[in-house]
Amino acid sequence: MRAVDIIAKKRDREELTSDELKFFVEGYTNGDIHDYQASAFCMAVYLQGMTNAEATALTLHMANTGDTLDLHNIAPFVVDKHSTGGVGDKTSLVVAPLVASQGLPVGKMSGRGLGFSGGTIDKLESIKGFKVSLSTAEFMAMLKQHGIVLSGQSADLAPADGKFYALRDVTATVESLPLIAASIMSKKIAAGADAIVLDVKVGQGAFMKTEAEAVALAELMVEIGRGVGRKVAAIIADMDQPLGNAVGNALEVKEAIETLHGGGPADFREHCLAVAGKMIELADKAPNFEAAESMLAQALANGAAWAKFVEWITAQGGDRAVIDNPERLPQAPLVETVAAPRGGFIAAIDAAEVGKTGVMLGGGRTKKGDPIDYSVGIVHHAKVGDQLAAGDPLLTIHANDAAGLAEAQARLLAAIAWADAPITPPPHIRKIIG
Amino acid sequence: MRAVDIIAKKRDREELTSDELKFFVEGYTNGDIHDYQASAFCMAVYLQGMTNAEATALTLHMANTGDTLDLHNIAPFVVDKHSTGGVGDKTSLVVAPLVASQGLPVGKMSGRGLGFSGGTIDKLESIKGFKVSLSTAEFMAMLKQHGIVLSGQSADLAPADGKFYALRDVTATVESLPLIAASIMSKKIAAGADAIVLDVKVGQGAFMKTEAEAVALAELMVEIGRGVGRKVAAIIADMDQPLGNAVGNALEVKEAIETLHGGGPADFREHCLAVAGKMIELADKAPNFEAAESMLAQALANGAAWAKFVEWITAQGGDRAVIDNPERLPQAPLVETVAAPRGGFIAAIDAAEVGKTGVMLGGGRTKKGDPIDYSVGIVHHAKVGDQLAAGDPLLTIHANDAAGLAEAQARLLAAIAWADAPITPPPHIRKIIG
Repeated sequence: MRAVDIIAKKRDREELTSDELKFFVEGYTNGDIHDYQASAFCMAVYLQGMTNAEATALTLHMANTGDTLDLHNIAPFVVDKHSTGGVGDKTSLVVAPLVASQGLPVGKMSGRGLGFSGGTIDKLESIKGFKVSLSTAEFMAMLKQHGIVLSGQSADLAPADGKFYALRDVTATVESLPLIAASIMSKKIAAGADAIVLDVKVGQGAFMKTEAEAVALAELMVEIGRGVGRKVAAIIADMDQPLGNAVGNALEVKEAIETLHGGGPADFREHCLAVAGKMIELADKAPNFEAAESMLAQALANGAAWAKFVEWITAQGGDRAVIDNPERLPQAPLVETVAAPRGGFIAAIDAAEVGKTGVMLGGGRTKKGDPIDYSVGIVHHAKVGDQLAAGDPLLTIHANDAAGLAEAQARLLAAIAWADAPITPPPHIRKIIG
Repeated sequence: MRAVDIIAKKRDREELTSDELKFFVEGYTNGDIHDYQASAFCMAVYLQGMTNAEATALTLHMANTGDTLDLHNIAPFVVDKHSTGGVGDKTSLVVAPLVASQGLPVGKMSGRGLGFSGGTIDKLESIKGFKVSLSTAEFMAMLKQHGIVLSGQSADLAPADGKFYALRDVTATVESLPLIAASIMSKKIAAGADAIVLDVKVGQGAFMKTEAEAVALAELMVEIGRGVGRKVAAIIADMDQPLGNAVGNALEVKEAIETLHGGGPADFREHCLAVAGKMIELADKAPNFEAAESMLAQALANGAAWAKFVEWITAQGGDRAVIDNPERLPQAPLVETVAAPRGGFIAAIDAAEVGKTGVMLGGGRTKKGDPIDYSVGIVHHAKVGDQLAAGDPLLTIHANDAAGLAEAQARLLAAIAWADAPITPPPHIRKIIG
């Protein structure tokens, strides 16, 4: 087998066999196949696509390039979730303890934020003492003892993905459905969960800009996961406006805590119940999705979810006093509420622009390894469809300096569109697959 | 400007500007742009194509990455030719002196053979003493004094092409019309000729398998050459069967000598007159193509072409006694004539198989740098359309050992198709462009 022949076959839109994909993925990972061949391959895949069978084989062989965790010694059935990222996406902070509170173990390895899309690991680090770097042994022990764990990627999961991703980033081959799906699913499959719920965002603040693209990606990932014997479902949800009200690490932790106490913004609560409900349903812990959602709503109302959150955060070293008193989370020196410049109905809030403003304030990274400020961010007081009078509180900015505050105010005001007539906001959950 | 944005633009089938192509070609040549970006770019070009304006700009910027010869101090108007390669293609050996005999300077840098397609430089080296490695100064001096020179590539012509070609070879991006055209034309343009005739072969023994592909490549190269101010024309000619009768270095020199004496195989003579005729026409040395061909036929008949050949070969150090007595060219120890195994009409001779058999005998290279045996090869005694009786001489094999001879005999017999009814051979010259 020769790499050049495999590239030529894909270039000519022929279907590659599992053996050919294995040869290419293994060869690239161990250095026998060069970057310049892998990039030509990625461009051929970008332009010619892949069948579902090819994407499934690619994913499996990528998953097999590194550690593959077997969690069955720990728990008979472990669930995981993956979000394609978005602005104000603190879903894991609520969903993980909510699901675990039902006796269903949640073991998740997560990433740091890059660009305008935040990372769960960063958010958790805003809780004093919380330890995100766990060895694989610590990860396993935590999962066994508490039925919940969330860490940075400790095991060497799908190293092929790291190589491919870095290459795709500089060769204009990122936005390819089979390559995106293989990248996400290879790590999830290697991480060992029996069931995976994919939280796919669509809109201005998401990687997928249209519902058609989001659905296509979700369907492909569901097919891939099932092809390798996992239970998989996907929630397609709106990311035209930010998710919930808070954008910024500590501010989002605070909002997650409110939600775990039974409050929180309506869209975010709905989102968490849908994602967690699918996880419960896939694990057969409820007869159907509606029953799962109502079990979970009860867990938010009766304190079970909150109790699990406390157990989890403290087990990973987080300071209980901080989560009991969220005002002890990092606080920005400048906090200013911006008034509505006019009366009317909010027609749109550009999530990407809100996310970028959060990065500008210091809450995110423009490149890997940048330090971040946990305290800064934005809290919306009105979302799409809400009616305000001129002068009503529109949003609050948490900033480190006056210049940042002024720039954020200008950008955020420009990111909000108004209407004179009532606006019916689109449904937050767009589609459920599987 | 960033390489990744240029790749993305081509990936999306947008037209690149000349500045963008300059940035990419220069960056790749000087190492600022990596192999893995250039290969993704080549795959995007392969699959999305290029406009003629893009291909022209690409060619010009590739030509400008190295030396660009200005021959106008040497001669007011210099012509060159380029063959896309084939089996039995000894055209330059006849065309160069034929054209130069009409007072039109021919300055040509040529390559060695690789695969089943022979190289002019190798053929000339079968003449004892002939020097193919000339410095640029020697090249210029020879052109000025004799109006004819043919050497290996001495100047650093279009180094970008060398880099791109090596990369394309291992990334399945060779067969792209704009990349092929830019590769050929960048070197021809850098070599400084005012007029270029492209000798494009089509068929089993050529790079272009169909007439449509050959015409598309030729039209693109003509357009590129004209776009940078050169006079360019193209001859599209058959390469389903070998060109002429002889395949093999010394055997082809002998056939070229016969042709320069006014004899030689009909198809090869026709081919040389067409290519040389176009060169004469482009240089306005004849009122039209037909007049040019008849001038040249006269030069073959009256000894003018032969005299120029003798002047050229001896000026570059070749032994006059060898060309006057071609039996002094390298001779293979085993020479065996194969009889027709049946009577009938020759329907086809698979040029690629004949070429590969020549390589097997030792007359060509399977990889760069392999030594070659000038003496071995094949001489056909009948071509497509000829009628033979069983036992008539079909072809003669010149080999080094009995095993090679036996294998060649079996392969060559299998490469010839027979018919019972008369066969009208297709015209040798398929199309003339420009």
